[in-house]
Amino acid sequence: MLAARDTDAVHAWLARTAEHSWMNVERVPLDGLAGWLTEPGTGNLRHHTGRFFSVESLAVDLPGTPVPHWSQPIINQPEIGILGILVREVDGVLHCLMQAKHEPGNANGLQLSPTVQATRSNYTRVHQGKPIPYLEHFRDTSGHHVLVDIRQSEQGAWFYRKRNRNMVVEVDGAIEVREGFRWFTLGEIAGLMTVPDLVNMDARTVLACLPGGGAALARAAADPFSEALVRSGDPATPGVHTTGEVLSWITEVRTRTDLRVALGPLAGLPDWTREDGVIAHRSGGFFTVVGVDVRAGGREVGTWSQPMIEPVGTGVIAFLVKEIGGVLHVLTHARTEAGYADVTELAPTVQCVPETHDHLPVRPRFLDEVLGSTRIRFDAVLSEEGGRFLGARNRYLVVETDAEVARDDPEYRWLTLHQYEELLRHSFYVNIQARSLLLCLRSLVPRG
Amino acid sequence: MLAARDTDAVHAWLARTAEHSWMNVERVPLDGLAGWLTEPGTGNLRHHTGRFFSVESLAVDLPGTPVPHWSQPIINQPEIGILGILVREVDGVLHCLMQAKHEPGNANGLQLSPTVQATRSNYTRVHQGKPIPYLEHFRDTSGHHVLVDIRQSEQGAWFYRKRNRNMVVEVDGAIEVREGFRWFTLGEIAGLMTVPDLVNMDARTVLACLPGGGAALARAAADPFSEALVRSGDPATPGVHTTGEVLSWITEVRTRTDLRVALGPLAGLPDWTREDGVIAHRSGGFFTVVGVDVRAGGREVGTWSQPMIEPVGTGVIAFLVKEIGGVLHVLTHARTEAGYADVTELAPTVQCVPETHDHLPVRPRFLDEVLGSTRIRFDAVLSEEGGRFLGARNRYLVVETDAEVARDDPEYRWLTLHQYEELLRHSFYVNIQARSLLLCLRSLVPRG
Repeated sequence: MLAARDTDAVHAWLARTAEHSWMNVERVPLDGLAGWLTEPGTGNLRHHTGRFFSVESLAVDLPGTPVPHWSQPIINQPEIGILGILVREVDGVLHCLMQAKHEPGNANGLQLSPTVQATRSNYTRVHQGKPIPYLEHFRDTSGHHVLVDIRQSEQGAWFYRKRNRNMVVEVDGAIEVREGFRWFTLGEIAGLMTVPDLVNMDARTVLACLPGGGAALARAAADPFSEALVRSGDPATPGVHTTGEVLSWITEVRTRTDLRVALGPLAGLPDWTREDGVIAHRSGGFFTVVGVDVRAGGREVGTWSQPMIEPVGTGVIAFLVKEIGGVLHVLTHARTEAGYADVTELAPTVQCVPETHDHLPVRPRFLDEVLGSTRIRFDAVLSEEGGRFLGARNRYLVVETDAEVARDDPEYRWLTLHQYEELLRHSFYVNIQARSLLLCLRSLVPRG
Repeated sequence: MLAARDTDAVHAWLARTAEHSWMNVERVPLDGLAGWLTEPGTGNLRHHTGRFFSVESLAVDLPGTPVPHWSQPIINQPEIGILGILVREVDGVLHCLMQAKHEPGNANGLQLSPTVQATRSNYTRVHQGKPIPYLEHFRDTSGHHVLVDIRQSEQGAWFYRKRNRNMVVEVDGAIEVREGFRWFTLGEIAGLMTVPDLVNMDARTVLACLPGGGAALARAAADPFSEALVRSGDPATPGVHTTGEVLSWITEVRTRTDLRVALGPLAGLPDWTREDGVIAHRSGGFFTVVGVDVRAGGREVGTWSQPMIEPVGTGVIAFLVKEIGGVLHVLTHARTEAGYADVTELAPTVQCVPETHDHLPVRPRFLDEVLGSTRIRFDAVLSEEGGRFLGARNRYLVVETDAEVARDDPEYRWLTLHQYEELLRHSFYVNIQARSLLLCLRSLVPRG
């Protein structure tokens, strides 16, 4: 935890930055969205340039499950963007260059964001904006030390096979700190994780991929939970399953899960209506596709319009954790989402919007234990990506448990933090919610 | 190398097996293929059950390359099959249960195949054949030691996102060795690698995924090449690039390569004709889609018919290898194939059919060096999968070189054998040709 005065200093910096940077967001009907058109025939929403992204539909077959077939609107954004954080070492301590950034979907204005957060359309300058600060360090990494460089997925329930390139690049020597940017140590960021809606989703996914981003910096732990947490990040500590066993389980799940998806036209989607300028589910559940006009100052483009996904309700994203043999283990769920590039990824123990389950046949396993627990180690409401999602917020929880799970449970395994770290070197093993939550969990590692 | 008498013993066993197992393959026009239909409208070839596979078309965009757009027939086989080898340890030596198996595409009859080689349609018994021997060990691995369990891709030029589950499972105690099966040590298989068309593609890919399948068994090496080869497989030996640098390079290639593909109808494919019962390219190049009637004895089904891909010409698949700092390095090529699940995989230095380049604008890099070299360490013609490809053969070569390649070459990197081994724990990093060739290279490791 940061001392209150450190948190105050960050808020003071954000307030100063906000004096030079503002954003107004106004809801408008999808039908009159400037620069966007509803394609005749398909009804798909796309930008007149054909770039950025489109909203289409996805027909999903997942036989043998409680909901074996459905169709939904989905964002198709085939471009791979860059989420990049510049770091430098000062007196042996890693510092991250973070940006205070507005996004139209942010509930609260500025959030702490990566140094660079750019779609390919951004950085090839389709909208003719100003150049993106610091981008050159990520587009040409020669001569720099690249600590992280891996494509990772994003929300598979809302995006069709979206992936971004998560990068951490270390620079030598001084670089100019521009207006709206500030160096933070990893410890400072850890201390800010519980501040609601402060560290943005893109910052969380990039930092989660940073090796040794927790235990390596640990000082002697003062209590058994911290000791077990530190041990969990130690490469020398075995888990209850070998990494080979975990990989074999992932192979088994991805092989047996018969997911079939097909992109299609947004027009005529069963159970979804397009009325009053929005696209909504007949039940009122899940999410709505809405339009916004954005006016921004202190950013590369002054005004634009775009469709956004506005989810219904606040989600619950939780890890159950347990000390096993002195090592903290995290209960991971093999979760299939229609938009994943490779069928199934490792997800939090619980990931759902409780209200949505009013419309679905099954109550999520472990949800009631999480909501009823008194052994909460981490609890904060954080925002999802404000560039595509309007007011999407989730309650992130880390909860201690005594739950017993069968060694060969088809859907769950206990993993150590180090095993997650090994998997995070590769694409598409750990989903975006689990990545965020790993960062939350690692923020509990005691620091000097 | 095996002594000649050991090779003779294997051939004698194959000959005995062949007495109880035969296969006749007859070419027939695609139009009258029993059990298969040409879909009205699309012209796609599919089985009347909708299972097994279909032949469709793929439209490919790859802007900025010498051939920025093309369309081709492609096999769509979404099911994930099992390629499994049972192993057991006898007196500290691993033995593999191999099968002598006919496939309709095999030029020479029986080949040395995995214990189990089964599509999901096979093992869920769509064609009502006999049960598949030993399959139960791979479908329920509980209580066994799983050494390999990973989905890997196959030929991306002929298959649309095909992947099979490569498995090695260790059994304790005796199991019955059925007619047509035989235990082989890894050393024996290594000694058989240079026998033309003997170790089949499926056996090669599975064995290539086996960790420590070479250097771990090495005895003291007698010459500098062998020493460098053994060191290359040693986890403690650094390569010229760190594995992190290799992963970052793969991320870079997969991010910058703008591959877009779309499955479509086989009918009306530009530049391809359907005449005289086959589908062929107007140039006579690439491959032909043909039909065959198969009659087999001593196997689960007596007769069937199927389409197959018959490639034009014999391919050249070669690694250039070089000792750098006493460690053998393999020159790997980041190769994009239209049918890959994830854009680009690591391929041999050279992978092409020289004749095909009469129809293409660019001569493959390093091809002339490979064909003109006198420093050949491995050279054998091996078959590709005889279940889908008719008479598909490639010349596999390992060639020493002094070639200099820039550290930041966009398309090539020097890798150690151990780095390949790390990547082979995960899906879709190393293509099927490179996997085969790694096994060829590892067969050169001196053994006790």
